[in-house]
Amino acid sequence: MDIFDRLESDVRSYCRSWPVVFDKARGSHVYDESGRPYLDFFAGAGSLNYGHNHPELKSHLIDYLTRDSIVHSLDAYSAAKRDFLATFGEVLLGPRGLDYKVQFPGPAGNNAVEAALKLARKYTGRETVISFTNGFHGMTLGALAVTGNSMKRGGAGVPLSHAATMPFDNYMDGRTPDFLWLRSLLEDSGSGLDKPAAVIVETVQGEGGINVASAEWLRGLAALCKEYDMLLIVDDIQMGCGRTGPFFSFEDAGIVPDIVTVSKSISGYGLPLALTLFKRDLDVWEPGEHNGTFRGFNPAFVTGRAALDLFWRDDELQRATLAKGALIEERLTAIAAEFADAGAHVRGRGMARGLAFDQPGTAKALAKEAFRRGLLLETSGPEDEVAKLLPALTTSEEELGEGLEIIADAARAAVKIALPA
Amino acid sequence: MDIFDRLESDVRSYCRSWPVVFDKARGSHVYDESGRPYLDFFAGAGSLNYGHNHPELKSHLIDYLTRDSIVHSLDAYSAAKRDFLATFGEVLLGPRGLDYKVQFPGPAGNNAVEAALKLARKYTGRETVISFTNGFHGMTLGALAVTGNSMKRGGAGVPLSHAATMPFDNYMDGRTPDFLWLRSLLEDSGSGLDKPAAVIVETVQGEGGINVASAEWLRGLAALCKEYDMLLIVDDIQMGCGRTGPFFSFEDAGIVPDIVTVSKSISGYGLPLALTLFKRDLDVWEPGEHNGTFRGFNPAFVTGRAALDLFWRDDELQRATLAKGALIEERLTAIAAEFADAGAHVRGRGMARGLAFDQPGTAKALAKEAFRRGLLLETSGPEDEVAKLLPALTTSEEELGEGLEIIADAARAAVKIALPA
Amino acid sequence: MDIFDRLESDVRSYCRSWPVVFDKARGSHVYDESGRPYLDFFAGAGSLNYGHNHPELKSHLIDYLTRDSIVHSLDAYSAAKRDFLATFGEVLLGPRGLDYKVQFPGPAGNNAVEAALKLARKYTGRETVISFTNGFHGMTLGALAVTGNSMKRGGAGVPLSHAATMPFDNYMDGRTPDFLWLRSLLEDSGSGLDKPAAVIVETVQGEGGINVASAEWLRGLAALCKEYDMLLIVDDIQMGCGRTGPFFSFEDAGIVPDIVTVSKSISGYGLPLALTLFKRDLDVWEPGEHNGTFRGFNPAFVTGRAALDLFWRDDELQRATLAKGALIEERLTAIAAEFADAGAHVRGRGMARGLAFDQPGTAKALAKEAFRRGLLLETSGPEDEVAKLLPALTTSEEELGEGLEIIADAARAAVKIALPA
Amino acid sequence: MDIFDRLESDVRSYCRSWPVVFDKARGSHVYDESGRPYLDFFAGAGSLNYGHNHPELKSHLIDYLTRDSIVHSLDAYSAAKRDFLATFGEVLLGPRGLDYKVQFPGPAGNNAVEAALKLARKYTGRETVISFTNGFHGMTLGALAVTGNSMKRGGAGVPLSHAATMPFDNYMDGRTPDFLWLRSLLEDSGSGLDKPAAVIVETVQGEGGINVASAEWLRGLAALCKEYDMLLIVDDIQMGCGRTGPFFSFEDAGIVPDIVTVSKSISGYGLPLALTLFKRDLDVWEPGEHNGTFRGFNPAFVTGRAALDLFWRDDELQRATLAKGALIEERLTAIAAEFADAGAHVRGRGMARGLAFDQPGTAKALAKEAFRRGLLLETSGPEDEVAKLLPALTTSEEELGEGLEIIADAARAAVKIALPA
Repeated sequence: MDIFDRLESDVRSYCRSWPVVFDKARGSHVYDESGRPYLDFFAGAGSLNYGHNHPELKSHLIDYLTRDSIVHSLDAYSAAKRDFLATFGEVLLGPRGLDYKVQFPGPAGNNAVEAALKLARKYTGRETVISFTNGFHGMTLGALAVTGNSMKRGGAGVPLSHAATMPFDNYMDGRTPDFLWLRSLLEDSGSGLDKPAAVIVETVQGEGGINVASAEWLRGLAALCKEYDMLLIVDDIQMGCGRTGPFFSFEDAGIVPDIVTVSKSISGYGLPLALTLFKRDLDVWEPGEHNGTFRGFNPAFVTGRAALDLFWRDDELQRATLAKGALIEERLTAIAAEFADAGAHVRGRGMARGLAFDQPGTAKALAKEAFRRGLLLETSGPEDEVAKLLPALTTSEEELGEGLEIIADAARAAVKIALPA
Repeated sequence: MDIFDRLESDVRSYCRSWPVVFDKARGSHVYDESGRPYLDFFAGAGSLNYGHNHPELKSHLIDYLTRDSIVHSLDAYSAAKRDFLATFGEVLLGPRGLDYKVQFPGPAGNNAVEAALKLARKYTGRETVISFTNGFHGMTLGALAVTGNSMKRGGAGVPLSHAATMPFDNYMDGRTPDFLWLRSLLEDSGSGLDKPAAVIVETVQGEGGINVASAEWLRGLAALCKEYDMLLIVDDIQMGCGRTGPFFSFEDAGIVPDIVTVSKSISGYGLPLALTLFKRDLDVWEPGEHNGTFRGFNPAFVTGRAALDLFWRDDELQRATLAKGALIEERLTAIAAEFADAGAHVRGRGMARGLAFDQPGTAKALAKEAFRRGLLLETSGPEDEVAKLLPALTTSEEELGEGLEIIADAARAAVKIALPA
Repeated sequence: MDIFDRLESDVRSYCRSWPVVFDKARGSHVYDESGRPYLDFFAGAGSLNYGHNHPELKSHLIDYLTRDSIVHSLDAYSAAKRDFLATFGEVLLGPRGLDYKVQFPGPAGNNAVEAALKLARKYTGRETVISFTNGFHGMTLGALAVTGNSMKRGGAGVPLSHAATMPFDNYMDGRTPDFLWLRSLLEDSGSGLDKPAAVIVETVQGEGGINVASAEWLRGLAALCKEYDMLLIVDDIQMGCGRTGPFFSFEDAGIVPDIVTVSKSISGYGLPLALTLFKRDLDVWEPGEHNGTFRGFNPAFVTGRAALDLFWRDDELQRATLAKGALIEERLTAIAAEFADAGAHVRGRGMARGLAFDQPGTAKALAKEAFRRGLLLETSGPEDEVAKLLPALTTSEEELGEGLEIIADAARAAVKIALPA
Repeated sequence: MDIFDRLESDVRSYCRSWPVVFDKARGSHVYDESGRPYLDFFAGAGSLNYGHNHPELKSHLIDYLTRDSIVHSLDAYSAAKRDFLATFGEVLLGPRGLDYKVQFPGPAGNNAVEAALKLARKYTGRETVISFTNGFHGMTLGALAVTGNSMKRGGAGVPLSHAATMPFDNYMDGRTPDFLWLRSLLEDSGSGLDKPAAVIVETVQGEGGINVASAEWLRGLAALCKEYDMLLIVDDIQMGCGRTGPFFSFEDAGIVPDIVTVSKSISGYGLPLALTLFKRDLDVWEPGEHNGTFRGFNPAFVTGRAALDLFWRDDELQRATLAKGALIEERLTAIAAEFADAGAHVRGRGMARGLAFDQPGTAKALAKEAFRRGLLLETSGPEDEVAKLLPALTTSEEELGEGLEIIADAARAAVKIALPA
């Protein structure tokens, strides 16, 4: 692994938790070069909701490539893009009554966020965007300004502007009514908050620590946006594509965001693809006003379409996700009860779950112990206080059980390590 | 094509010039759904320097996918990444004496630029970055601030800050000595220019109109950076990977930038991949201080490594590119001579070439006429005054001749259309 | 008055409430050109705490001018400045144990605020300054960024940056614990609030609607600043110079701000003068790093020193202010009780008092009716919902009684006008 | 002088060059406490164009104060303001055909600049303001962003934005045609310069080193502003009020700026007063949208009006200024010839003159030597390379001769000190 030390920037990070060289992957497992399998409860940070190298998607992908179909075509029309759009409309938008237009803003989630912010500002003619404590939206300068993490913000090297941070749901442990502060600022012409263009929110904050916004809070936020003429942007990059059960994580709340960002699992195969969706009348872009080389990556359209066909034409996956989510929650709750002394508690929705510890260092130690036992798991939250479970939605109940057993074991080891003697 | 109208945002642009649906592609040709071939002098805006679906790269890619090798692994270690890095070091960095570290900042060129700007600001503790007239570096907020195009800048919806624009080589037609203005600003503590962190420059401005910086000018810029302790960032996203002959477009000038951005053709197959290279002592990143989901896309490492093996272990491609570039220049010069009345003239280096017209509308009309005749060609420059030739480096001399014939024909038609009666 | 319409910008404002031409002034009265007297409960927005044209100050001023003493000397040493500084140290700083250095940042309050913000940012190396809802600190770009009023902010013509607004004491009617939000942001490395350089606060918000911060809240704020290493700036421009009783309005709370801004009544005679005071170790200015032409206006030093001699060598004025303040409060409370239907209530501290009305338009109408009855009174608050009483501290009890009678009468008329029929 | 050391901030600067305590002043002389006279070629940095304590102005001032006329009235109507406006219109605006409205933006020049910038941005809806190398416009955040001096800019503690610096007349020694760069940027939609709201310029840069813009250059600039729909702001704070001959320094050039800032000598007596003048149709301010406590200081209106009456009802002062300016130039030219080895040369217009030295340190040494010989003189320019002469316009020819003799002597001593042995 000396080559990495020698040639790769110190900015690399996941490899520090998992100091092996991965080689193969299939379903819920990855394998290092020695052939050792790892059960994957990380799933590419939510980019592999259908597991690694799903055989049907793989078949479509290889078929596409074999036939010399066009791979790279920027934003020219391609058959693959047309088919993706048609299926996206038919399977997702139509049945949900979402009259959205689709923008392909570039290959990464941050491109989707940057496009969303630019469009909201252009459409409203205002600059300020409301973001939430512990929100995470990306590392490019516009997305970083609405991201909470201080270490990542510090990397900007310039002050981050045109954003204002507000308390996420339950941020102050219920000691203050929802939106009291934000509403006060909006109502009061002397508050010092310039009228915002938009609000950007995650329904469940993944990087922020698996913090769940309640449906009621989301509805309150949507109503506030409407009342004060702010656009509502839901960043569904990590929680969309079925992670919480329904395709879009905001469906349960019964809200219709003005703008939605989608990426990560949308290709279904770990291929870079991102979408910015918005209500039809927001489509005030000039041709080419936002662009980017990889904004239409045909292989991703192919696997993305196949994934929609395979998983979203009925509600089977959604129901399975909810059932598995309940199973995980149940088991985690039992584990947490065992570690009440370390302040363990459970968070999450659907198959986005977290085991949080008040005791510093415990979650980090748990992840390390889990890795030793063959389970991939990352931590999140401002102090890395949460062990974060994002298994592929296609993970079997047996695999889930196996992983949760490892977590319980790892927690036992971790609490000992982290506890002062 | 009604599906695009109905579902895709109006921001789409290339499809407006080429209103057909592309389906297949191989080498220098793409094919629409009816099977009509188009000779491609656009090459994915420089992302397909080895042509579409190069058979050897394709074979590696399909092999990789077929064996269920890991596709998506963020910045964990993977065998594919290791092999890419090793080959990158061995084939490119070592022989050129470049002691760079490699960052994978995300899948798109703008990620590479954002990382470069952040690193330069962090390293120096300063904010201002010098950019050049008609420079193009991307659409995310940081990259957009150093991009010249006013329409694209306007899309930001917020004022763009922390950048200062300077004249590119020959911007004022030789009426002012090189760097007179920039040097004056730097020398003068009362100039109003805050000491810059860095300079970001393209050696040939692709989007800006195929404007070529001379080797002398580039050396002058590098010397100025050294003298005034500013980092030199060469954005080699479009002109790197052999477009101008050598792998890095700055090699001819004999300069060693502090930071280099690479993307587009680096995967060799149109797969999203981007690199930020920088001198070893600039590697002041904290682990994870810049991140992103698709910052390590293994299939792109596989094709990227294969492309390095195939094309960069000897100087054959480089020599061929220079020879073909000369051929294109010669033919374009003859064409330009024919249209002196329309102010036609030739620009470019290697296989990045432009046929510029003073007569407004001519280049646009030429591109349209070329498309009618089966040639894909885009325009660039602030007023779209340049027909831009970026054929794959692997385009045969016959294909080049054929395409240049079409260009001559198209120019004849275009001049008539654009000229006032 | 046609000359004003023709030549003076529409930005003029107080003249719109009082459409007469003032000519003479003495003590608590001003006189228009016809000789009509007006009792002045406005006192130059708090710039005339010792009344108009106080005879002793006047005598010093005329004497200074008559002797051809130096009037304008920028920041050269002058005898008048030395004497002012000596008296300032002896009468104010020494007895209060304040080890401050004094900067003369320019003639206006906004100069004092701009210097305070610059110094806090320079000293800490950070950018963000915390301000409070309905705070008012001035109209220059730096001061405006920490000012709440949206109309005034809108006048900037550029987005205002590097500031974050927080709830002032009792902003949300006690529904949330003091500093819960600010402390949460500071404690949480994922909050999205960049570590602030400083906090800027008024102890009583004059322009914001006579909102009083309790001593407990101010102590809590000072403690928070200390805990999180932020500088505490008290903007005492309107509430200093004895307006609330003690010379500095923060004395009662027992806190020692890091930086204090003083202006308005500091010259005692309505002459432009402003001070920025700060703890000795904050004096990191380079010579001339902040400057301005009128930063040392000798006549203002002369009257300012005389005012310190006359009013602040004992506690007579302070006691009288508190007594008069109590008198005003008592009478206003009785008036408010009479107009409970209009939601009348009383605010304030010392001789900064407000009669607020929930019923829209009432305070404006009251001020208008008061003017008709010969009393000058302005409104404040984001919706001009507060009739604001800032009589000179030297106003006699008889005059106060007379003015409060007019206010009661005016309120009766105003409520009728403002109430829907 | 210990009191200054102990209590006054280290930011003080002029006192460092002149370590005496000034006490009295009359005409062109100031006197320290010991009674030693100093001939004043500094004149309050151009604030005392009619000398210190001019007897007629003094008489008006004392009379006004004695009669208990109103001193402080914010922007209420006062008789003094009316009379000032009427005279300003009659004596200055009318005869020059200037249809300006007058704003009183606060007491200091920076208030006039801040108001000008805000108005230009509000009126145009754009943010960027063009400023020039070595321009000086003030220390508040908006004014500082268009000021060149790096030490002063650094004091901001935040990046300065929304401004772009351009070369002042002759900045690059004639090696580039006027406005070649600025025009290129404006013409080119890919230049990276966002369309500016305005240009702010001094006709002669005082702080910047007595750099004179030619009438031709100013006309070119005005034409460029018109062509590209940018507002032209002339900052006439130091060079207005007759300093260069005519009342407004731009009169000679035959241009009519859209906005003009005036301060310093406008009160005629060193009293703080500032004006922002603008064309009638630019008066888009809302009432109170820009305000400030000392924005109408009646004693300054009184002396200001008296000064207009006394000096500007005929062309006597203007002619005398030009004659004296020629005399100064002649004498300085002779002195410069004597010190050709030190790179001495003469700059200036009217009675704003500079003796510049290429030899570092010479001008500083000259000013010091002059002070020893009883002459007050400051230096300016980015490296303090210019001895700056701003004698009162009322300085007699004898006094001018005396002062120039001292300068010649001081130069002789200075050159020896500054020259390497």
